[in-house]
Amino acid sequence: MQRKIVPNIVKPTDVATAIVSDTVFDAAKLMADKNIAALVVVDGDGNIIGIVTERDMTQRVIAVGLDAKTTAVEAIMTKNPDTLSPDDSAGDALELMQTRKYRHLPVTADGKCIAVVSIRDLYASVKESLEENIRETEAFVFGDRYGA
Amino acid sequence: MQRKIVPNIVKPTDVATAIVSDTVFDAAKLMADKNIAALVVVDGDGNIIGIVTERDMTQRVIAVGLDAKTTAVEAIMTKNPDTLSPDDSAGDALELMQTRKYRHLPVTADGKCIAVVSIRDLYASVKESLEENIRETEAFVFGDRYGA
Repeated sequence: MQRKIVPNIVKPTDVATAIVSDTVFDAAKLMADKNIAALVVVDGDGNIIGIVTERDMTQRVIAVGLDAKTTAVEAIMTKNPDTLSPDDSAGDALELMQTRKYRHLPVTADGKCIAVVSIRDLYASVKESLEENIRETEAFVFGDRYGA
Repeated sequence: MQRKIVPNIVKPTDVATAIVSDTVFDAAKLMADKNIAALVVVDGDGNIIGIVTERDMTQRVIAVGLDAKTTAVEAIMTKNPDTLSPDDSAGDALELMQTRKYRHLPVTADGKCIAVVSIRDLYASVKESLEENIRETEAFVFGDRYGA
């Protein structure tokens, strides 16, 4: 069976978000508190308008000598990020992330972010599904498909 | 066949390193230049003594308000990181990284770092090897194992 982003890979959840006017310092503190690698950035209506990652913190803040306490997250975020739909398949999503070198993608429904998927979640799921496939094929070949 | 860290997952390479006395700013610049997520930290003899990642840049520098230009990389690195040996199997390495929640591990030989492996490299390889396994099993079952 094809695994779908929601609910097979992630469940809808309260996504940690930054408001577009938050400082980089505030965003980094939230990422540290939650121990997460990416933060969704929303406008005043809660619509997703960007994403900011640990990579942005390294490359677009520290490496260029920006002051995190006076820089708005808007200045370093990736605007209008690609998103996944809850019904997308895990395999398609993994291929998209491999091709475009993303490590995180927001899952949206009606413009709101309902979850964030990491390439790690997807790999783990695809690996599990391949292992299952192998077990079933072997059981079919060797005839020890208990209860089937 | 069991895949080994070297040469199946990574080849020995010139690993980007920071010297322990480099500033966080210098380390971040190097990570940005190379577009890498982790940097090995070495002492004056080139022996590995730590690792610093984008997560450290976010959580141990920006989120706590440190000045990247006056902080030494030694202050924020993870000391004496776990390492892999070139002969370790891809499967064992993936399990170690999943269990301990590492995303990068240095591969060392005689105390020197000869490569850095990411969990993404490992997942990609394990996925490939499982897919190969499935293709071979199916070819065996359905009898179209060309050239075998």
